[in-house]
Parts: sequence; structure tokens; C-alpha cells
Amino acid sequence: MRAAIYHGPHAIALGERPDPTIQLPTDAVVRVVLACVCGSDLWYYRGESPHELGPIGHEFIGVVEEVGSDVRGLVRGDLVIAPFIFSDGTCAHCRAGWMPSCVAGGSFGNHGVDGGQGEAVRVPFAETTLVAVPGSGHSDETLRSLLTLSDVACTGHHAALSANVQPGNTVAVVGDGAVGLSAVLAAARLGAERVIALSRNPARQALARAFGATDVVPERGEEAVARVLELTGGVGVDAAMECVGTGQSMTTAFAIARPGSIVGAVGAPHGVHVPIERVIFSNIGLRGGVAPARRYIPELMADVLEGRMNPGLVLDFETDLEGVASAYEAMDQRRAVKSLIRIGTV
Amino acid sequence: MRAAIYHGPHAIALGERPDPTIQLPTDAVVRVVLACVCGSDLWYYRGESPHELGPIGHEFIGVVEEVGSDVRGLVRGDLVIAPFIFSDGTCAHCRAGWMPSCVAGGSFGNHGVDGGQGEAVRVPFAETTLVAVPGSGHSDETLRSLLTLSDVACTGHHAALSANVQPGNTVAVVGDGAVGLSAVLAAARLGAERVIALSRNPARQALARAFGATDVVPERGEEAVARVLELTGGVGVDAAMECVGTGQSMTTAFAIARPGSIVGAVGAPHGVHVPIERVIFSNIGLRGGVAPARRYIPELMADVLEGRMNPGLVLDFETDLEGVASAYEAMDQRRAVKSLIRIGTV
Repeated sequence: MRAAIYHGPHAIALGERPDPTIQLPTDAVVRVVLACVCGSDLWYYRGESPHELGPIGHEFIGVVEEVGSDVRGLVRGDLVIAPFIFSDGTCAHCRAGWMPSCVAGGSFGNHGVDGGQGEAVRVPFAETTLVAVPGSGHSDETLRSLLTLSDVACTGHHAALSANVQPGNTVAVVGDGAVGLSAVLAAARLGAERVIALSRNPARQALARAFGATDVVPERGEEAVARVLELTGGVGVDAAMECVGTGQSMTTAFAIARPGSIVGAVGAPHGVHVPIERVIFSNIGLRGGVAPARRYIPELMADVLEGRMNPGLVLDFETDLEGVASAYEAMDQRRAVKSLIRIGTV
Repeated sequence: MRAAIYHGPHAIALGERPDPTIQLPTDAVVRVVLACVCGSDLWYYRGESPHELGPIGHEFIGVVEEVGSDVRGLVRGDLVIAPFIFSDGTCAHCRAGWMPSCVAGGSFGNHGVDGGQGEAVRVPFAETTLVAVPGSGHSDETLRSLLTLSDVACTGHHAALSANVQPGNTVAVVGDGAVGLSAVLAAARLGAERVIALSRNPARQALARAFGATDVVPERGEEAVARVLELTGGVGVDAAMECVGTGQSMTTAFAIARPGSIVGAVGAPHGVHVPIERVIFSNIGLRGGVAPARRYIPELMADVLEGRMNPGLVLDFETDLEGVASAYEAMDQRRAVKSLIRIGTV
């Protein structure tokens, strides 16, 4: 089959991989329909994080082609959403709802596991990993939104839940990438009354507003902190979401969070120092991390299918497998918020 | 009046201070009955943190001697508990329950404010700071327990609440000082089924068991981590409480916490590095800090008065104002868990 292959920093190309087959009775083989590129993929794309040479991509939706003998609840032809982590569903961490810590789990496009940016994927623990989408004849817009449930929409939701966003809250999101924008959407969905988006990019500001941002702060660093404090009467926000993963974004999030609140952080950390004095002397907590997407998908999928949310709007660049390199380039150069790769049909 | 005075590291002596008087209509003057020494006092006692020369001590109970014209709900003769922070009760942070962040507040025994280790204290914002104790004729045992509500018992409670201890949980407490022991008590009170205390000191182990610890781990560092993981089937604890404030204790707490749990930290931080990778890749949160004692006192006081908890057992050394230097020495040399200073009578 054809699949995107990582050959090293800034070197991604379409290549050939063996056709996936059932290897364990808990496997399924899924034919990929839509995939996308994650902001976290840019870390290795830019050479800032290690990544094995080989298949890539951990966000995809597709159609079940074959299931192993132990897989219940899924049949050939089902449209499915794959959370970016596969998990056995039975270990202590899975049972507690923390699938990313599954003792037997892993992520797609890593350590030789098929990536989502290819024609097909062998999915381990298919029954406890994949989520079947009910109904048929979904619009392309719906499919694009379902694709984001694979990671980014769930990660934004995780930022908001981790920060304990409550109805009526005034909140702020640090980061205007796809995750930050998804966190804006999630916070508004959870009932935040005032959602402050930190963004200086006009297109992203517009998307933030479409997702429910009520205020946009274009400043950065200390000026952004001053502006958010001014907007909140000097108090700080009820919930801050950190959706970048750098030292500055974490510092900003802690500086704008009010005493007693929680910073919900989902950015992959690079050079992050947690300001422990803000934690202890202002009682500002820190929660978040790798989102348990499998746990969130059913709830968010219902909202997507009923038209209550359209997280797929973050996908503002589109290509096919032949164009996979351009999908990365567009995001690397910040021409795109998030790149869609159209691979198959439902 | 006579009061303990800080003259520099390892130099604490009884001295003279002006008799406190009402300076603002929101003040009260309280005659001190019992005071004690906080583990956090040892940081400046040992020269490891700065502290102004002058009055010291932030934990005390006493009897109201005089109230300003704006103070309602308190009258001369009332027995009162002073939380270690005074707060105006009206600012945004106070209204949200985070009195330690009060914009007009402060702590006793700092910046010229009378310390609790003296014969009397001018208490700012008396109405919203002090808590009157109902009833009369309380036993000395009860008074000692009420004294601990001034800080240490509330701080232990804050560690447990911050770590989100739930009924039936398996939890662990890092630190066997007075705060750690109070956290053991708090976790057991909140319904934790299994409470693992990390302690190698036989007397403190015994007190931990008296407070509800079901398991004692005498190992430290990596060996302690291995032992706790062994006790929890490799999963880690449902809630970890960090009650020391050093780099090693924070590292240990994060290492024994299960994915998705929260480290409740209340130790004053000295050289603490938060392991951000554990936060993000294992979804282990961090909450805690300076306890909002004023908020917790009413609930804990009811339990003390009804004999359901006896946090005063942490006070295992006793002296009077003349002996105040020995109160610090006993804790500095770890001969005492916590030192009581008997100053007046009810």
C-alpha cells in the first residue's frame, strides 16, 4: 500500500508499506478515508524531537475492512474514528479512563505501528480502541469534524476539562494553533461566558471568534498578561488553558490564572519550567496532558452528528497522499492551521 | 508585653514589644493562650529563607480583649482561633475562598505585624479573620487540637483536598513532619481506605498509625517509590500528598502517583522542580499551596469539639515564652514533631 514515510527532518514522502493484515485476534484492518497532520508532528518534522524513520500520522478515520476473531461490536464496512492512542481497555489505567497510560497501548505511526497517513492501518485492540460512527451518508463537513475527534478536538476538550472550566466562567486560551482553537470551542461548549483567545494572526482570530471567543488579545508575553489582567479587573481568569508547550506559554498561563484556579495544559512540553511559586503561593494548579480521546469521542461525536459543533473548521488546508509533504510544509510555515489528507472514500 | 523576637538564624529570644492596641476600627486585640512553632519557621531559623528581624509565630489561639467599632460577631472574652493569614473577607479572592491571596491580607509575625508567639496580638480584619469557638470549659486536649486548626491541621486537610482524596482511595503521604502527619489524619477522615505514610522515624510512624495510616514505608527515594508501587500492584496511589517542599519529595510524590491522579502539595518549595513530563505524559496533576485555613476552620473545629479528631497529638514538646528558644531547637534537631508554647489561660 501507499503511505507517508518519515525520512528525517523536513523529509516526508509518499512511499510503499506492506498491506496490513490481521496479526492478532484483537486486531482490525481499517482502510483510511481521511487523515490529518498534528501540531506535535512538527516537532520531529523540524528535528526538535526524535522520531523513528518510517510510517507517520496518528489521526484518522476510516472504514473497517477486516476484524480479528476476538473483536466484537465492529464489522466490515463500519465507519470508525481512531483515537491517536490504541489501548487494551482492560488494564487498571484504561479502566480508570486514562487510556494513554495503557500498559499495552501505543500510538499510531510510531515504533513500526502503521500510521494514519497511509491507505490502511492495522489497529491493535480494535474493539476497545475504535469508535464506530452511527448512521450513513454523512456530509464531507461532518466527516472532517469526525476526523478531528481522533485527537485535536479531544485534546482541546481535555484542556478545558483539566482547567475545570465551568458555566459562566471567564477563561483564557494560550496558543492559537489547532489545539488552542479547539480549546476555545471546548470552553465555549462547556458554558464559559467569556473566552479570551491569545492570538495575533487575523485568520486564527476569526476562527477563534467563530468557535466562541468573546475577546482576542494580540499581545504576547508580559503585555498579554497585563491585558488579560486588565480584562478581568486585576483578578485573573477562572481557568487558563496552555496549548503550546513552551516555557513562555506556560509562564503566561500561570500569570493570567487567578488564585485557586487550574492551568489546563496539553502542549507537548519543550523547555517548560513550572513556576512552583505560583503553584504554592497562589494555589494555582496544573493538570492536563495526553488526552484520553477514546473516553471523550462518544460524547463529542454525538454533538458533531447533531450539528452542535463543527470542530473540522480547523482543517484549512487540503491535499492527498501524493501531496503529503505539502501538508507538513503548510503547517511548518504557518500557512495552515491544520492540514487534511484525503486518502479514500466512505 | 513579652514576645518572642527573631534576631537572626538560630537566635530567637524573649523580648519586649509595645502592647497592641486597636489602630483601625476593624482590629481586635487578642490575648494569646497557646501558640506553636511551624515547620516553615525552621526555614528562616536555619537561615535558609529570609525573615525580618522582629516578632514571629503565626499559629495561635487566644481570648478577645478588645474589638474595634466595626467588628461584629466578636466580643471581649471570646475564645478565638486565628488562621495564620488575616484577610479582609471582601476582595475577589476572599469571596472565592482563597483568603491567602487576599489583596489586603498578610500573615502574623511578618512585616511588623504581631506574632502569635507573644502575650497579645493586634488582629487586622478581625471579623473576617478570627473564628470564635463555641462553648466553654474546653479541656486542655481540646485546646491543643483547636490550636492546630490555626495552620497545620488545615494545611494537612488542604493537601488531602488538593489531591482529591476520595472515600475508598489508596493514598500516600510524603513527609512525616507535623503537616505530613496532619495530611494522614485528613486523608483518613475523608475516607481513604488505605493510607501509606512514608516515614523512617519510629515515633512518627506510631503517630501516623494513630492518625489512620494503614501502611508505613520507611524507605526513601527510589526505594520508597518501588515499595509504594509494589503495595499498589504497580499502579501507583490514587492520591499523593507532598508535605515537605524539597526536590526529592516532589519527585517521589510524582513517581508514586497513578496516571490521572493529583499530587496535593503543601510544602513551602525549596529547590523544587516539577517533572513536567510526568504531568503531561501521565496526566498527573499538581494542586495545593498555602491553605485557606479560614475557610476550613469551622468544619474541622466541629469535628474537634465533638471529639471526632484529635490533631493536637502532633504537639509533642511543650514550653512557655521563657523557653521559646528551646521550642525551635527541639524541632530543628528533630527531637520534636511540633512545639507548643503555653502563654496564657482561657
